[in-house]
Order: sequence, then structure tokens, then C-alpha cells
Amino acid sequence: MKCSYVALTFSICAALLAQAPQPGANLVSPQVHPDKTVTFRMWAPKAAEVTLTGDWLPAKTNPKFTKDEKGVWSLTIGPMEPSIYIYNFNVDGLAMADPVNPRMKLRARTSASLVEIPADTPAFWQERDVPHGKVEINWGKSKALNGETRGIWIYTPPGYDKNTRKYPVLYLFHGNNDIAGGWTLVGQANFILDNLLAEKKATPMIVVMPFGHAAPYGARGNDELFEDYLLKDVVPLVESEYRVETGRDKRAIAGLSMGGGQSLRIGLGHLDMFSAIGVFSSGVPANFETRFATPLQDAKGTNAKLKQFWIGCGKQDTVFAGSKRLSEILDKSQIKHTFREIDGAHNYTAWKKFLVEYAALLFR
Amino acid sequence: MKCSYVALTFSICAALLAQAPQPGANLVSPQVHPDKTVTFRMWAPKAAEVTLTGDWLPAKTNPKFTKDEKGVWSLTIGPMEPSIYIYNFNVDGLAMADPVNPRMKLRARTSASLVEIPADTPAFWQERDVPHGKVEINWGKSKALNGETRGIWIYTPPGYDKNTRKYPVLYLFHGNNDIAGGWTLVGQANFILDNLLAEKKATPMIVVMPFGHAAPYGARGNDELFEDYLLKDVVPLVESEYRVETGRDKRAIAGLSMGGGQSLRIGLGHLDMFSAIGVFSSGVPANFETRFATPLQDAKGTNAKLKQFWIGCGKQDTVFAGSKRLSEILDKSQIKHTFREIDGAHNYTAWKKFLVEYAALLFR
Repeated sequence: MKCSYVALTFSICAALLAQAPQPGANLVSPQVHPDKTVTFRMWAPKAAEVTLTGDWLPAKTNPKFTKDEKGVWSLTIGPMEPSIYIYNFNVDGLAMADPVNPRMKLRARTSASLVEIPADTPAFWQERDVPHGKVEINWGKSKALNGETRGIWIYTPPGYDKNTRKYPVLYLFHGNNDIAGGWTLVGQANFILDNLLAEKKATPMIVVMPFGHAAPYGARGNDELFEDYLLKDVVPLVESEYRVETGRDKRAIAGLSMGGGQSLRIGLGHLDMFSAIGVFSSGVPANFETRFATPLQDAKGTNAKLKQFWIGCGKQDTVFAGSKRLSEILDKSQIKHTFREIDGAHNYTAWKKFLVEYAALLFR
Repeated sequence: MKCSYVALTFSICAALLAQAPQPGANLVSPQVHPDKTVTFRMWAPKAAEVTLTGDWLPAKTNPKFTKDEKGVWSLTIGPMEPSIYIYNFNVDGLAMADPVNPRMKLRARTSASLVEIPADTPAFWQERDVPHGKVEINWGKSKALNGETRGIWIYTPPGYDKNTRKYPVLYLFHGNNDIAGGWTLVGQANFILDNLLAEKKATPMIVVMPFGHAAPYGARGNDELFEDYLLKDVVPLVESEYRVETGRDKRAIAGLSMGGGQSLRIGLGHLDMFSAIGVFSSGVPANFETRFATPLQDAKGTNAKLKQFWIGCGKQDTVFAGSKRLSEILDKSQIKHTFREIDGAHNYTAWKKFLVEYAALLFR
């Protein structure tokens, strides 16, 4: 690989990692073709089998690569729906990120890669030529987490710094094995909001994206601890440091997968604080009907409080049956809600669509 | 690997990438021991050789792993100086990120991992219990880059939102194959500034961290294009959207490696705009003495304008000789400057130290 920084009179290439010539270093992977097919490549001459794992593929569906005479494995799939997908390679049983792809999925455990399939004209989740909000990382010390400091990613809409108005707030949660930046770096929630606002399809709002693993990864009691963290630390930080409207009508909550469960738990458990709940691709939490017997039995009161109760799931998602059952439990209790099913899997491709629909309904 | 999210009545594990039981999935890598040694591990039963590449290791120094009877390769190194290091594995010639380590180095080309060795009490670059500034991503449309939108990472000091004062600005550049977030995610420039400010060792300032690859990665002419981008887009955006002091006394510039070259080029080329230049781990740019004949020949004028001209390099850095030669050229022209040499390599471990020293000198 040639060192690009020719302006230095002697090369600093030697000091840069993975810049030395080596087998496979000049491979391109992933290669997104104009027809929206994608070719993945990996140099692994000794491997017996290389397969692909992708968040758009059904469970246990792992397409196989084929090897050429140089030991380069390749696989072309698609065409793919424009989106950003998470994938990794499995080489004789070992899952790994795509070695030559710098676009990584930052998460809580193990490594993976991202591939973006752009739309022909910028899609609702892509950066468009419209005014942009900002996303800032706000390092807040947490009482609930024994004084630990956690970075919260916070979207402020275009113009936030140029006026004095106050904004309502959406608290938006990621899923298991993600990070606080997931909704920005993969979900592109900021561009989704920018685009909705440019088309006047949403009310300007602040979007607060905390880290959903309050307990150490994999430990029990995470949802309880996260609830504590959100209510004791995140909401007070937001309401003291940002120009926000307060009161239940001005707070909404939503999350995906694990974060959908958190949203349901915190939202239904604190109807005094939130007036909208969004649950993307989540099943029925344990002991749901007993834990939330009060709001479920008081349909009239609950319906009067929840301006939006919005559940969405992809029909090809492994949690679809559970999501539908959640809706049925709510129906049985006559709790008003939207149940939205789409063609889609357990991935940000679906969650981005849900955010668009849900965000447009809020604070009306 | 056990799914942690027990609250759902049925498992969503199947939908999560790399969660399925597989050889090597339960490995811990890297494992940082209390004595600051580190063990790296990888499951690769068929590999003939696994080696380590690290940004703290001398060029061509690649310690070898040893394999156990289960096909797990491991290597213990150190003790290491507390810092955040970039590394990857080389498996029979193929460089790859550590498959089980989620902490990735985001960059422009190929994948790599990070390992953090914490200090016994939080070091100058670690998060301490002090007031924190924020880092925000500001998506600005660029005239110089044909209307492309680029995310600029911008640090605002503690209290920025709570007062009406104006701040001076440091423009801080990353090196080759890094991203705009590098100085935050690896360099922890935000915590360095927070800590300096808490000890009253620096003047409160805004730190602006743009993406240094203005041209497509590896293309020629990047430094020229980056200069254009900085002056036509980044500085105007900062000065229109933030509460900043303007004028040359209130603007400083600095960068590492490729970014040090950019800092030198833009700083010396625009003494009307900048009063301080920091060059971390960079050699002598091509045609330096002819390109900058004017400021080099006018030592009196240049010395009067530059309140700080600060060059730093690690003695074990491959560019050390070049950095020293830069200092000698300046000496020859009687251009006042600091040349700081430390024990260190071409990595953020050195650059963090340089930022601490340089930032403390600014805007006095």
C-alpha cells in the first residue's frame, strides 16, 4: 500500500499500522456496485470455509464465499435495499470484522463491520442538503451508577443555538450490544430528524441517546438499573443543561429491541413523566401483565395519558411473534396503540423506518 | 455466549450478530492485568504464525504469539505505560482487528483495535471527577469540497452553555488514516482540556477537529485542498456558529504527523490568521525552504507574529530525524521555536503529552 502523504521528505509509512505490503492488503471489501449488489472479499488461503453473517439475513442463513487460486474468498449478494447493514465474516468458525473495511460497528462486545448502500437520491436516513442539527457527547456523572461518568449522545435540531425557544425531548434507546452512539453512527437519527424537519413533518425536538448497558454487559438487573440511571441522572441533566420544555406532554420515549423493553418499562411505569411510548422490535417483557397490572386495568386512564403508544416490528424479525403478542395483550386490555408491521428484519433498516413514523407523530 | 436480555420472554439472541456459540467466542482479548501487562488472544487453529502489530512497537517489531492445544494463540507483553494504544493481529500475513475486542480504532482504511491501560489514579488524559466540556459533531456543508457535507468534531469547554463570554480557538488536526473523531476517541483531547482547565493550567478554549482527508484517501493534493477547506469552510463555520474571539491572537493551530505538516503549511502560510503553530511528530514538508522563503527570511517579522511555534517528537519515532531537521532549519533562519523531544513513538501516547504542553501555552 502506497503512503499517501507525499509531502513529508521521508516516509512515515513504517510507523502506520497495516500499511505494509501484505497479502490481501489491496483487496477492496465491501465493494458496493451500481446495481446495489455487494461483493465481500477476504484473503484466507488456508481456510476451509468462509461465510457471511449479516443483520439482514434470516437466522442461521450464512452465505458461503468461494475461493480463487490466490486464496481470495469472495461473495456477491444482493441487490440490497439502500441502508446501512452490520455484518461479519466467519472463517472456519471464528467470527471477525472484515479486515480491510475501516467502517466498524462500535459496540459492547466483539467486532463487526458496516456496509452502506446509498440510495440513488438521498433516502430519508441519508444526509440531504437541508439544515443540520448537531449531535453532542455530554459526559454526565451518574448518581445511579456510583459516580461513574457516561457519555450521552444528544441531538439538538437546526437553529438550536440561534434562538431562545424551548424544545420537547425524545429519549431514544439502542439495543443489546450497541453503544450510545449507535442511533447516530448507524441509525443516523440526526439525519432522519433533519430531513423530517426540513419537510415540516416533525416538531423540532431534542433527541437524547444514553448508553443502555447500565450494568456490566451481560449482568442481570440491567433494565432496573437503566431505569434508575435515566430518571435520576439523564432526565435531570437534560432538563438542567438544555432549553427543554418539561412536563409529561413534552417527553417521549422509544427504543429498539432491548431498548424497546426499557421504553415500555419506563414509559408505562412512569405515565406521570411520559406521554408517548415507542417500542421497536421488542417482545413481551417478563411478568408484563402482572408488573403493569395497574395501567393495563385502567384503560381509560392510560389511554387518556398516552398520546402515542406505538409498536413496530418487521415480519421477518425473529421477535415478530412476541411483538404481535404484546399488541394482543394491549388489545385485550383495551389499551389504545398502533401496531405497525413492515417487511423487515431485526436491524436498523427497520428501526430507521420506525423512527421516521414515530417521530412525526410526537408533540402534536 | 449467553444472551443478557432475560426480560424478553423469548430469546432475541438469534438475531444478534456474533452471539452464537462458536470456537473462540468466549476468549477475552485484550486482557489488561493489574501489573499493566496485557494478554492478547486469538483462536486460529490452522494458522502457522500469529504476530502483533502495535503503535508503541518499533518498526518491523512484531512479537509472536504461541498456540495452545486448543488452537488458541496468546501473547503477553508489558508492563505498558498507561495510555490507549492501536494494535492489530497478523495471521499468516493478513492484518486484522482483534476479533473479540469491541473497542475499534475508527479510521480511513483497514481495521484495527484499541487497548486502554488505565493509570492507578486517572492520568492527565483520563476522565477525572472535574467539570466536563462537550464534544459535538457539526455537519457543515463545504464550498471547497464541492458542496460535500463533513462532520467536524468540536470541543466546547465546561460552562460554555452557561455564560455569554467568547473563547479563543485551537484548530487541531489528526494524522494519516485517522478520522475527525480520532483526537476525541483515542487522543481524549476533551478530557485533557477538562483536566488542564480544572487545574487552571490552560485558558478556556474551543477545540475544532476537522477531518484531515479532504481529498479521497491516498490522492495527491490533499494538503492544498485541506487548507482550502479549513480557511473557506471550517473557520467561517466556527466563527459564525460559536461564541469565539476572532483575530490572529485568538487562533492557534496544531496537528500530528500529516496534521503537523498541515499545521505548518497553513500556519506559516497565513501568519495574518494564526499566532501559534504546533507540529507533533512531523518531518520537513517538501520544498519547505522555498515555499516558506518569505517567513523564513523575515525572522524578525515572523518571530513577532508567532507567540508559540512548538515542535515535538518522540525519540523513538521514525520521523524523529526529520522533526529535528525541521528545528535545525528554523534555527538556521533564526525563527524562534520550541523543540521538545521525549521518549516516545509515533502514537497518541506521545501526542497526548504534546497537546498538554502546547495547550497550556496558548492564549496567554
